Amino acid sequence: MSIHGTMLIGAEEVRGTQGDVRAVNPATGAELEPVFGGGTLADVESACALAAQDFDAFRSAPLETRAKLLETIADNLTELGDELIERAMAESGLPRPRLEGERGRTCGQLRLFASLVRDGRWLRVTVDSALPDRKPLPRSDLRSRHIPVGPIAVFGASNFPLAFSVAGGDTAAALAAGCPVIAKAHPSHLGTSELAGRAIQKAVAACGLPAGVFSLLVGIGNEVGGALVKHPAVQAVAFTGSRRGGQALVALAAARPQPIPVFAEMSSINPVFLLPSALQTRGAAIATGLVASATLGVGQFCTKPGLIFGIDGPEFQAFTAAAGEAIAAAGSATMLNSGIQQAFAHGVGSLCAAAGVSKLAAGAEQAHATAAQPVLFSTTAADFSANPKLAEEVFGPAALLIACKNADEMVALAERFEGQLTATLHLEAEDHPLAARLLPILERKAGRIVVNGFPTGVEVSYAMVHGGPSPSTSDARATSVGAMAIDRFLRPVCYQDMPDNLLPAELQNGNLSTHTRLIDGKLHTA
Amino acid sequence: MSIHGTMLIGAEEVRGTQGDVRAVNPATGAELEPVFGGGTLADVESACALAAQDFDAFRSAPLETRAKLLETIADNLTELGDELIERAMAESGLPRPRLEGERGRTCGQLRLFASLVRDGRWLRVTVDSALPDRKPLPRSDLRSRHIPVGPIAVFGASNFPLAFSVAGGDTAAALAAGCPVIAKAHPSHLGTSELAGRAIQKAVAACGLPAGVFSLLVGIGNEVGGALVKHPAVQAVAFTGSRRGGQALVALAAARPQPIPVFAEMSSINPVFLLPSALQTRGAAIATGLVASATLGVGQFCTKPGLIFGIDGPEFQAFTAAAGEAIAAAGSATMLNSGIQQAFAHGVGSLCAAAGVSKLAAGAEQAHATAAQPVLFSTTAADFSANPKLAEEVFGPAALLIACKNADEMVALAERFEGQLTATLHLEAEDHPLAARLLPILERKAGRIVVNGFPTGVEVSYAMVHGGPSPSTSDARATSVGAMAIDRFLRPVCYQDMPDNLLPAELQNGNLSTHTRLIDGKLHTA
Repeated sequence: MSIHGTMLIGAEEVRGTQGDVRAVNPATGAELEPVFGGGTLADVESACALAAQDFDAFRSAPLETRAKLLETIADNLTELGDELIERAMAESGLPRPRLEGERGRTCGQLRLFASLVRDGRWLRVTVDSALPDRKPLPRSDLRSRHIPVGPIAVFGASNFPLAFSVAGGDTAAALAAGCPVIAKAHPSHLGTSELAGRAIQKAVAACGLPAGVFSLLVGIGNEVGGALVKHPAVQAVAFTGSRRGGQALVALAAARPQPIPVFAEMSSINPVFLLPSALQTRGAAIATGLVASATLGVGQFCTKPGLIFGIDGPEFQAFTAAAGEAIAAAGSATMLNSGIQQAFAHGVGSLCAAAGVSKLAAGAEQAHATAAQPVLFSTTAADFSANPKLAEEVFGPAALLIACKNADEMVALAERFEGQLTATLHLEAEDHPLAARLLPILERKAGRIVVNGFPTGVEVSYAMVHGGPSPSTSDARATSVGAMAIDRFLRPVCYQDMPDNLLPAELQNGNLSTHTRLIDGKLHTA
Repeated sequence: MSIHGTMLIGAEEVRGTQGDVRAVNPATGAELEPVFGGGTLADVESACALAAQDFDAFRSAPLETRAKLLETIADNLTELGDELIERAMAESGLPRPRLEGERGRTCGQLRLFASLVRDGRWLRVTVDSALPDRKPLPRSDLRSRHIPVGPIAVFGASNFPLAFSVAGGDTAAALAAGCPVIAKAHPSHLGTSELAGRAIQKAVAACGLPAGVFSLLVGIGNEVGGALVKHPAVQAVAFTGSRRGGQALVALAAARPQPIPVFAEMSSINPVFLLPSALQTRGAAIATGLVASATLGVGQFCTKPGLIFGIDGPEFQAFTAAAGEAIAAAGSATMLNSGIQQAFAHGVGSLCAAAGVSKLAAGAEQAHATAAQPVLFSTTAADFSANPKLAEEVFGPAALLIACKNADEMVALAERFEGQLTATLHLEAEDHPLAARLLPILERKAGRIVVNGFPTGVEVSYAMVHGGPSPSTSDARATSVGAMAIDRFLRPVCYQDMPDNLLPAELQNGNLSTHTRLIDGKLHTA
């Protein structure tokens, strides 16, 4: 077995001595081998010291080496073959095709960042030429580029054991930026984390990079994670998870003597607006699609459509009936862990008890203790407005249909939302005037606006934004998916009148044409 | 008189009713006419509600209108002529040539942002084309652009009554991004603030933009500023001032139900490293230059060189003697206000009392209560290391010379710094190996590295970085001077499968060639 139950601190494997912990198969409740040792504060110190020590060497290595690192990680993940998939299945309850797809996405993501590293646009090479004869004062030669901020603490998400975990998007973006990564293994998938961590560790060595580029820690309770966020060497934190978890990390980071940014992707209920002509034209198809989106991956996506708004009338009633039929036909499935199942049960219970909310229909009954029964609720805009709790995320296969009296009421509700990762519109040509009223509001509220589709399924590409105003994330200016995710881990540095041979290579006169650059305000492509 | 002692809330002039306040001439202690009324919480509410109401109209106005707004503000500032300069002289104690230069810089800054708005690079137009036949899943059409975050609270700085105040860099960058601005007048230059505010108010009207684009508030005490930061409509804060002031705003913004970013430029001591050959070759000239830089504007620059490191020996001693002579020849001058003078006196007192620190030489004695006597101190690296207080900013015409035993000690000290706006090296060809040891450290610590020059004098250009790790700013990824300053006030939004006519103009197929854009990963310039 290649899972040893150890942490990875640089090139070493280190057994934690702070208690024992095992991953649990959520489908069976069985504890999985091997036992993992919990890390100590000394382990946090070792990993952070190593990252700080090797930061300069890593960031000054050739970009080609950094790109190769990312590609080698992808190769190593692929090479793990079925061992990785089967371990992830056992730890997450997710089915094989989903995890095979997720592995493909994870490797694709690493390769996208490799190509981005080579391209070098993110360096933002900028030159303002010296103007020695300018009056009243001469201008110095000014050059700037973006550099990595420093070691990054990455907290993996439970719901993407590959794509948003140890070798996931945050790690890929941080390494691409030139930042060492110290990942904290998610307790739900410790074995998957170790396998992915070893794929990275091996790639670091194979590329001749210093060992401090990557470490993987295991923590029992919150002590290791907290110490990691507070360690002076760590310069930013990436997190995907609950609102409470994200807010706790934000508070810890802000209370440091040197505060650091936390990029937490936390909470989104992803409103969907069904405009009248769309409902009339294809209400039944939208109903099937929405229920499929809300139950995909047992509803355990941050982009799950949780609130569905329509204007009351025969078309919305027909849609509601069709959605009820679709959910009734949906199966029960295993959730990621018992904590998530309990939170889901609690959320469903609150909806059942809420004034003016009716249970519309439910799918197959829960097959075992960690499984979820898909369920749809319905209410009116008036009852929805009266109870802010109804706009809170219920993580799992549940959604709430809201009947608005008219378009004005729908627009007024849109204005009341907190920040969202996504907002979705279903519309036909006749609906454009109403869409044009909603769009400026939704732009202010959400990072991505989807038309005639469903918010689940987040493409890893250049234009993707997986972010949004608080509380969907802790920094609306950032995305945690797609090429722009690299910007979270970069900061600008300006060099004034620096001799050419002391300048960083990409700013030296002989290399200026290598990358896209802004020279005296004019952009030149590579 | 065109100064009425009023606030500007949108198109209205509003007299504050929360107490009376006057600006004070720091050179004479005389109170200046007219009396200003302090704003109330209701005034904050009015200004914020107006900004929120007009945000969508402002951000959707043509970019050309936004550019014209910035240019019109510059024209209106210039048109104010001597009234603006004389009022700023009376309120700040700064001399005419400095303020005329600062006005030029302020107008130049507004015009730079106007040209940036027209260029549209900051929109970051990005398109990932639909791939309907991709297997296993098709790809949607994904387009993204950056949009303004929302209304911005701008807190002007005392030390640049024009360039970092009501119509200064933060306001210019926020307006350029499409964000309404609510400025809080600095109590030290209320009249200058009103004049600049009226220049903006008039420009907003002349450009046919909605009145909520700009408001100017006066606050007595911290209540108005605090309420502004806490108002739900406000989406980011820009501040230049003290470390304590910046940290207070950061804490307020973080404690909101919806936390928002604060871009605070706070504290920097701007270390200077004199390398051996440079000292040998031109020690006396460096001494004169450094003293001129440390006393420029009565030392009231965030980029004032506060710590000067050399390797002990005859050259450093000769440099020290020359610097002492230069400071002895420097005159006393009026500081910005009595609070700043008292803080300076306190900082100088602490240096006088610190173990191992000697007063090297001082300039002309303080001419009146609000004036400052320039002064140089010296110490050893060992004493400097033993007392972290010596690395704290003393705002005003004071600097500390530190004699290191050798290059290793200099490098070790560099590693101990907190974040800085600037770091400066004086070097000759023979010094390059030592510079190469220092540079990776300084890159991690500072936003700008100056070679063979002085850190004061911050060019407003494309490559400029006026920022740095905490505590020099609250966000190392940002700059508050130069074209990149616009990025603070923008966030990305992605549009998935949106019909062409519903897309924002710049993302519509017919307009894609207008701006620089990234199409399927390839950059095309406009």
